Amino acid sequence: MITTVCLDSVSKEFTDKIPSTNIGEMCLDENKIVWADVADPTSEDFTNLAAEFNFHHLSIEDCRKEHQRPKVEEYPGYYFIVLYEAELTGEHDHLELRELNIFLGANYLVTVHSRPIRAIKTAERLWHEWTDRAEHGAGLLAYLLMDAIVDDYMPLLDILSERMDELEDQIFGEFQPAALEEIFRIKKQLLYLRRSITPLRDVFNTLLRREQPLFARATHVYFQDIFDHIIRVADTIDTLRDMLGSTMDAYLSVQGNRMNMIMKRLTSISTILMSVTLIAGIYGMNFQHMPELGWKYGYIFALLSMVGVGLLLYIYLKKVKWL
Amino acid sequence: MITTVCLDSVSKEFTDKIPSTNIGEMCLDENKIVWADVADPTSEDFTNLAAEFNFHHLSIEDCRKEHQRPKVEEYPGYYFIVLYEAELTGEHDHLELRELNIFLGANYLVTVHSRPIRAIKTAERLWHEWTDRAEHGAGLLAYLLMDAIVDDYMPLLDILSERMDELEDQIFGEFQPAALEEIFRIKKQLLYLRRSITPLRDVFNTLLRREQPLFARATHVYFQDIFDHIIRVADTIDTLRDMLGSTMDAYLSVQGNRMNMIMKRLTSISTILMSVTLIAGIYGMNFQHMPELGWKYGYIFALLSMVGVGLLLYIYLKKVKWL
Amino acid sequence: MITTVCLDSVSKEFTDKIPSTNIGEMCLDENKIVWADVADPTSEDFTNLAAEFNFHHLSIEDCRKEHQRPKVEEYPGYYFIVLYEAELTGEHDHLELRELNIFLGANYLVTVHSRPIRAIKTAERLWHEWTDRAEHGAGLLAYLLMDAIVDDYMPLLDILSERMDELEDQIFGEFQPAALEEIFRIKKQLLYLRRSITPLRDVFNTLLRREQPLFARATHVYFQDIFDHIIRVADTIDTLRDMLGSTMDAYLSVQGNRMNMIMKRLTSISTILMSVTLIAGIYGMNFQHMPELGWKYGYIFALLSMVGVGLLLYIYLKKVKWL
Amino acid sequence: MITTVCLDSVSKEFTDKIPSTNIGEMCLDENKIVWADVADPTSEDFTNLAAEFNFHHLSIEDCRKEHQRPKVEEYPGYYFIVLYEAELTGEHDHLELRELNIFLGANYLVTVHSRPIRAIKTAERLWHEWTDRAEHGAGLLAYLLMDAIVDDYMPLLDILSERMDELEDQIFGEFQPAALEEIFRIKKQLLYLRRSITPLRDVFNTLLRREQPLFARATHVYFQDIFDHIIRVADTIDTLRDMLGSTMDAYLSVQGNRMNMIMKRLTSISTILMSVTLIAGIYGMNFQHMPELGWKYGYIFALLSMVGVGLLLYIYLKKVKWL
Amino acid sequence: MITTVCLDSVSKEFTDKIPSTNIGEMCLDENKIVWADVADPTSEDFTNLAAEFNFHHLSIEDCRKEHQRPKVEEYPGYYFIVLYEAELTGEHDHLELRELNIFLGANYLVTVHSRPIRAIKTAERLWHEWTDRAEHGAGLLAYLLMDAIVDDYMPLLDILSERMDELEDQIFGEFQPAALEEIFRIKKQLLYLRRSITPLRDVFNTLLRREQPLFARATHVYFQDIFDHIIRVADTIDTLRDMLGSTMDAYLSVQGNRMNMIMKRLTSISTILMSVTLIAGIYGMNFQHMPELGWKYGYIFALLSMVGVGLLLYIYLKKVKWL
Repeated sequence: MITTVCLDSVSKEFTDKIPSTNIGEMCLDENKIVWADVADPTSEDFTNLAAEFNFHHLSIEDCRKEHQRPKVEEYPGYYFIVLYEAELTGEHDHLELRELNIFLGANYLVTVHSRPIRAIKTAERLWHEWTDRAEHGAGLLAYLLMDAIVDDYMPLLDILSERMDELEDQIFGEFQPAALEEIFRIKKQLLYLRRSITPLRDVFNTLLRREQPLFARATHVYFQDIFDHIIRVADTIDTLRDMLGSTMDAYLSVQGNRMNMIMKRLTSISTILMSVTLIAGIYGMNFQHMPELGWKYGYIFALLSMVGVGLLLYIYLKKVKWL
Repeated sequence: MITTVCLDSVSKEFTDKIPSTNIGEMCLDENKIVWADVADPTSEDFTNLAAEFNFHHLSIEDCRKEHQRPKVEEYPGYYFIVLYEAELTGEHDHLELRELNIFLGANYLVTVHSRPIRAIKTAERLWHEWTDRAEHGAGLLAYLLMDAIVDDYMPLLDILSERMDELEDQIFGEFQPAALEEIFRIKKQLLYLRRSITPLRDVFNTLLRREQPLFARATHVYFQDIFDHIIRVADTIDTLRDMLGSTMDAYLSVQGNRMNMIMKRLTSISTILMSVTLIAGIYGMNFQHMPELGWKYGYIFALLSMVGVGLLLYIYLKKVKWL
Repeated sequence: MITTVCLDSVSKEFTDKIPSTNIGEMCLDENKIVWADVADPTSEDFTNLAAEFNFHHLSIEDCRKEHQRPKVEEYPGYYFIVLYEAELTGEHDHLELRELNIFLGANYLVTVHSRPIRAIKTAERLWHEWTDRAEHGAGLLAYLLMDAIVDDYMPLLDILSERMDELEDQIFGEFQPAALEEIFRIKKQLLYLRRSITPLRDVFNTLLRREQPLFARATHVYFQDIFDHIIRVADTIDTLRDMLGSTMDAYLSVQGNRMNMIMKRLTSISTILMSVTLIAGIYGMNFQHMPELGWKYGYIFALLSMVGVGLLLYIYLKKVKWL
Repeated sequence: MITTVCLDSVSKEFTDKIPSTNIGEMCLDENKIVWADVADPTSEDFTNLAAEFNFHHLSIEDCRKEHQRPKVEEYPGYYFIVLYEAELTGEHDHLELRELNIFLGANYLVTVHSRPIRAIKTAERLWHEWTDRAEHGAGLLAYLLMDAIVDDYMPLLDILSERMDELEDQIFGEFQPAALEEIFRIKKQLLYLRRSITPLRDVFNTLLRREQPLFARATHVYFQDIFDHIIRVADTIDTLRDMLGSTMDAYLSVQGNRMNMIMKRLTSISTILMSVTLIAGIYGMNFQHMPELGWKYGYIFALLSMVGVGLLLYIYLKKVKWL
Repeated sequence: MITTVCLDSVSKEFTDKIPSTNIGEMCLDENKIVWADVADPTSEDFTNLAAEFNFHHLSIEDCRKEHQRPKVEEYPGYYFIVLYEAELTGEHDHLELRELNIFLGANYLVTVHSRPIRAIKTAERLWHEWTDRAEHGAGLLAYLLMDAIVDDYMPLLDILSERMDELEDQIFGEFQPAALEEIFRIKKQLLYLRRSITPLRDVFNTLLRREQPLFARATHVYFQDIFDHIIRVADTIDTLRDMLGSTMDAYLSVQGNRMNMIMKRLTSISTILMSVTLIAGIYGMNFQHMPELGWKYGYIFALLSMVGVGLLLYIYLKKVKWL
């Protein structure tokens, strides 16, 4: 399904929706800024796009195949951009990464995606509110869209960061085995997030240093802003990964500490019980000449010895912190 | 065994198979595009190649020796390319890497390999189907061949990725010792895969930034596409390696957890059994004055004490989660 | 709240405080050096700033949003700089990072911060004392401010370094479990400190290699000095991180050593007690023909055997360092 | 001891051995290609070299001191190259690294070494067999020598690789403690090998990108070939290191697994023996009213109970895989 | 205290010591090469230096503050260099790093240090012995000084390397707990050494690639030599760090192995003693019908059973290597 919005940069008015077969024609007029959004594209839509915009078949192929890595490729007359919108969905905060393909020309923007992209709504609203939108061409539109996507990573990372803080508290407090599984789930999510944002860093870096005939200098500043946000997101992801590694180390150390604690306790309990049992064993011997056996309070004496030895050991072991 | 295909870029027709001793001659005609495939080359084949195409003896030497690292080398008039086709074969998914040597000139492509390469079939088929094949020279042929090889890495990595997901589930669920061996097998396979793809990344990066007299700008886009796929494969391998590392960490932590569990259980069982045995020991003492010994239900009382102490300890230890 | 200081570089005198709505006007006069400090900015302040100095709305936006990554951005006519002042506060040495936004023009400096920044006081004082302050323009002011902030990192790192030395001593001496938590707190603080200083390293590196029309060569040396201090801080942070990692390794090894010690002790104690109990068990057997049972000093003999066996084992185990 | 070989590039004949004091003179004739090999150099030899060839005293100093890092240094009129030949010697495959210093001029090659270098023999033989040796000057000679040295690393790495495969099998099979020591020995050998080859990678990379007045373009290809082999060796070393790291991880995990196994077994055996002993303890009590004691088959009954309880526990523990 | 040495490059004679207030004057004469050594500088000395040589106040500030990172900074007319001399002192081989500040002009060298620097003596001696010292200006002096400092790192690293070899032997042989503390001490020393040498690597690399108006080409070779030695030291430090890491890994593995050994022994001893005790327990039962109890050699039989069971278990456990 192709939806189009078209802005006349002279009259500064939005023109009516245009049929999808006339888009190419419309784009020839440099005073029009055209946004064509292709949701859940059919094979026919791809053929249309290729025909209307004269896109290189390799970029069309990339759209069709999906699961591309995030990238910005320069083709004659347009950029082909792949981005991923990230969202934590469902009860268990499953990480969903939704692919968005962008064809960015001087005065047109074509967005292709098989799943609904929230940022498209945001970008459209902001574009309608933007005062000097007619002066920046399709570049501004691309900025609003990419910025909405990249900025959405930050609150998501804040959620993961809070989760990690809770996990850390659990580790030093009372530990729940489920926390371990949670740590690894977050680790994996950070890996996927990183994979979907860091390749853009290098590409934007290269793009911003190059001569860019497609966009004016004033628009260039906006791309620098996206680059800044991408770095911020990438840095935050790296910091979270470092902290998660540190949390894992903490967990392993705490685990080692607990093992030491348990072993000391085992040794202590064994020592106490074995010592006491030894006394019982001694008075269970069958010697004919064992004076204590004949004592009136021999039994009481034996029991008291047992309690005494047990208590003494207990106190000693408590004192050296083995119990 | 040398097989040849020859395309006339003027008549746009395939010419008949040509005898291997005439290939060099044929290549002098710039309107011909020649593909010579040398399977399981004999010493004579190498001599032939060197004579017909005037290849530098160092590149011929590399072909002959095999086990080269993946690379792209520039020689006067042609590129010498080494690639590896990857496949998981056999019941235990053994990773097989098959070396392919490519000599790429402006209007000829020579492929040398001692084991059958699947991608050659694919590339040949696609070339015959390609509409504007006559315009791109031997570059298109090289693209189709390399692309077929590089793209084959992705499904293979998907298989490894699925296997890893299964292993991760096993780690947090019921663990099979064989899983550990499996983890290390995958780790090794990823190491080999990485070694056979990442060197190409840097080489292609260098090549694409250079002035390239051999191929037209239109063909250049195809090489950029291969570069993009190589990065994608390399990134995926790195991500899988990261995840495998994370799985190993998880495994070690889970192992530590289990050890803690076992030690607690050992302590608990020892404590219970020793305590109960102590009671038996007490009533096994031979004091003359032990009132319980004379009781009618003394024996029952002792047994009940044992059960009681055992149960109390059991309940307590269950409550503090040591059992 | 906007506070302003204004220096006349001709008369070399400080002029009176100027109303915030005249700052822009004042800055047009190239002989004035203006410092406007905006503490706890209101929405109105931001509008004022944008209007008076004609700042790009993207940089105003960054100020407003806060939590930016440390950076230096070049806008037409001014630099936009984000820095963090670091302080250990409170009883538990909580690390506080206070954001400072700087707009640096050729002859003006605008500082924006929502929390009080100590370095502002320091920089102001040093500026008033500086002899050739009129010759360096706003660049000197920026240097004094940034240098005060960056230099404050060093004493803070010294505190952390001392803390780490104490922790290390604890690890090889008598270990307190709280030390582990302390290690991880420092690790986290170093992570935050690193994140707030290292991005500046790369940016300054780039800036210093570029042609810089805004400032004279004589001022350039001061920025090189800040760069040098940033590297020093960043290097120290990295060294501390390495040493903390090393301390963690030491901790884990010491823990392992202790575990070995405990296990040996457990084995030793079990062995001694079990051996002694065995003797008691033997003489608790009910055979009719056990000569020792009838001996006069059989009991004494048995007790002495127990003590003997226990002592021999004890001495042996002490000798092999298991006890 | 100085040995010389001299090739006349016009007559293409080898001239007779020349006295060591005439070498410098000989080298002035551009049509001669001179190779002077200085084995086990005396102080006098160094003085001679410096005088004959006019070598910079810093490079002579490096030769004299030995234990230089592998490097290629450019001096006016010649390159000074340090390489290490690697060999596994003796029964325990001790790694021997033999230093070779090369002075490479346009038409002369001086090799200095205190221990015999096998590659010198190989290079000499190949040079005598080479057909167009007169056209490449001393560069070819350097290529043959360096290539012989670098290529010798590969079979050595193959040996280490095989050893590692055996070790890995041992780890998952029946483990011999000696294997651990072997792993660390290989690790150290790889460290030394890496140290003796990787510095060359960067140097060659720099050299090959530079304008090189000393050698013709045709000779340049040979240096590229050495560079390629150096990368191959360096990559292989890195891969082996990665695999060794992975083997170590495997070893630690297997060790952890075994510990878990042992602990389970300990718990199981203790449980069985303690339970059976408890029964004996019960019937060792001295109550007057214990009906079983009077039973005719009481003893048999007790023994059978013991066997029964032991067997039941054994079967149960076998089933849950603790034994 | 300021000491001066002055060489006249025309007469090639050393002139008499000059009063510290005339140094600046002397340096104006390009034919003089002046070395001023400022040991344990007072505040007055710094004022003098600034006045005489016209040093930038930032570099004077760096001297005054001390604890700078190693660096080479370019100021108009001179280089400001910070280096550290390393020495192992005292009984426990405490690592001492002594800061040396160098101001290097075309024909003067000013060295500032608060602690005695051994290399100064060495450099002075070598300078006096050097034949063509008059031709190289102050650059040669700087070379001799820096080279003496950098070369002193190597024997120090050799000492650490030998210590590490001993530690490694201890780990696989009989382990002393003190070895662990030693490992961490060396680790820390390597960290400090690395921090005091590696920053120079990058700086020298940059310096050597730049156009250098201060020194002649002939002197340039000497700086390249220092650079080479710095790399050698840095590489050796990295190798030692790698090896120490490997030693730590070995230690942890050996520790794990020992733990396994101890646990097996504990299990074995428990098993033997418990089994033998069980027999005693059985014959301690009070059944009326226990035929063995009435046997004449019942007691002997029981003791022999105990010894037999104990021996059988012992032999079995020895055989499976658990004891």
